Amino acid sequence: MDIVIIGSGNVAAVLGRKFKAAGHKILQVVGRNASAASALAYELDTESANYMTLLNKNADVYIIAVSDDAIEKVITELELPGKVVVHTAAAVSKDILKNVTEHYGVFYPLQSLRKETSSLPDIPVFFEGNDEVAQKKLETLANSISSQTSTSTGDEYRLKLHVAAVFVSNFTNHLYALAESYCKKEGLDFRHLLPLIEETALRTRTTLPSQSQTGPAIRHDTETIEKHLELLKEHPRLKNIYTLLTESIQQSI
Amino acid sequence: MDIVIIGSGNVAAVLGRKFKAAGHKILQVVGRNASAASALAYELDTESANYMTLLNKNADVYIIAVSDDAIEKVITELELPGKVVVHTAAAVSKDILKNVTEHYGVFYPLQSLRKETSSLPDIPVFFEGNDEVAQKKLETLANSISSQTSTSTGDEYRLKLHVAAVFVSNFTNHLYALAESYCKKEGLDFRHLLPLIEETALRTRTTLPSQSQTGPAIRHDTETIEKHLELLKEHPRLKNIYTLLTESIQQSI
Repeated sequence: MDIVIIGSGNVAAVLGRKFKAAGHKILQVVGRNASAASALAYELDTESANYMTLLNKNADVYIIAVSDDAIEKVITELELPGKVVVHTAAAVSKDILKNVTEHYGVFYPLQSLRKETSSLPDIPVFFEGNDEVAQKKLETLANSISSQTSTSTGDEYRLKLHVAAVFVSNFTNHLYALAESYCKKEGLDFRHLLPLIEETALRTRTTLPSQSQTGPAIRHDTETIEKHLELLKEHPRLKNIYTLLTESIQQSI
Repeated sequence: MDIVIIGSGNVAAVLGRKFKAAGHKILQVVGRNASAASALAYELDTESANYMTLLNKNADVYIIAVSDDAIEKVITELELPGKVVVHTAAAVSKDILKNVTEHYGVFYPLQSLRKETSSLPDIPVFFEGNDEVAQKKLETLANSISSQTSTSTGDEYRLKLHVAAVFVSNFTNHLYALAESYCKKEGLDFRHLLPLIEETALRTRTTLPSQSQTGPAIRHDTETIEKHLELLKEHPRLKNIYTLLTESIQQSI
């Protein structure tokens, strides 16, 4: 397929690489950030533009991969009759695109994408078209870059996936960051924790997390919990989070 | 070395396998749980006993791998002069063993160990002996089973490591479990989240978590956060945790 990518951030870059690797042709990268757009265009062997007025109108599919609140700005006065136009946002309705074309939808990668990554991780893709033309084209596109594709069934479904993703990705990363800052303040080497971080994550492949909880909270090991809280008294934010998550673990049983 | 393992739970099983794989001889597994002790002894090609009175006195090193509060019971009336005796607990002082022998210490594996695992993950080991005899023997033992060994410098150091481990392992697993229960209630497939869980964890190999935070909280994307909280209104526990962790992420900037 011939594709135009609007945006030059993390999602634009990673999807662009995936499309290129799958043999699609990227006709253009459009982005306000001139250096990011031209760098991405160079990498994808195509040209870049910095204004929507310079948009190439000859693609089959237009991927709007910009931040949620920038979508509205991008599509002001945009008309692409006959084309398939999608955005990549979990939390934005596909209907925001209904005045752009008769074939629109969402192409949502459920992955924490960063353009700096050297590898291209496996990316589950949830797609959703408003009509059969969009649906078929998006299905083909999704299957060409991912082994894990699903049709999302409406805006709420995607938003729910996004909530779950925030818990397992954004919030776990924050726990890692809190441990990192704790280690730094206390003179410990954060790298000692890396095998533990990996093992805990990889265990979800074989065992449901509800079945593999370990630690002082689930054991109701009050003595250890009190020793930990004593150590955390100079770290009030960590102490709050420790207390709340310990209670939550104990309520889960 | 000739080793006796006291305990038959997760830590006992995984350390026992590591010792055996490194060429040490396990003389005996001692455990109150007769079936677990004999199963582990069978796996380690040795014999088991169910009472401390039957303890084999001919080993070089005794590993007490039982739950924190069981250590005291195990060592009642235990005397092993000339031997090296350690426990494996992060949150217990090594001095609890001072009446057992003149050479004692701690052998703490910083990993979430489960006996059901088929692979033997890499295990950072923190060891600490009360004198040179214990220190040297534990160093040799640790280096024989792990490429990541360190001397811990006192009980508080180990306890601090344990606090950090609770954040990156027990608490992250709980976030996974909350997402699992949310998915179940909302009809989503938790497995869709596995690539995201793995990518988030593996990223810590190359990027400090404080440098790789993503998501609506760090972007101060209030609109998305409010949509998420609206979805979570029937899940009060998740809503509380969502709110606290979102605030904490925003305070980190």
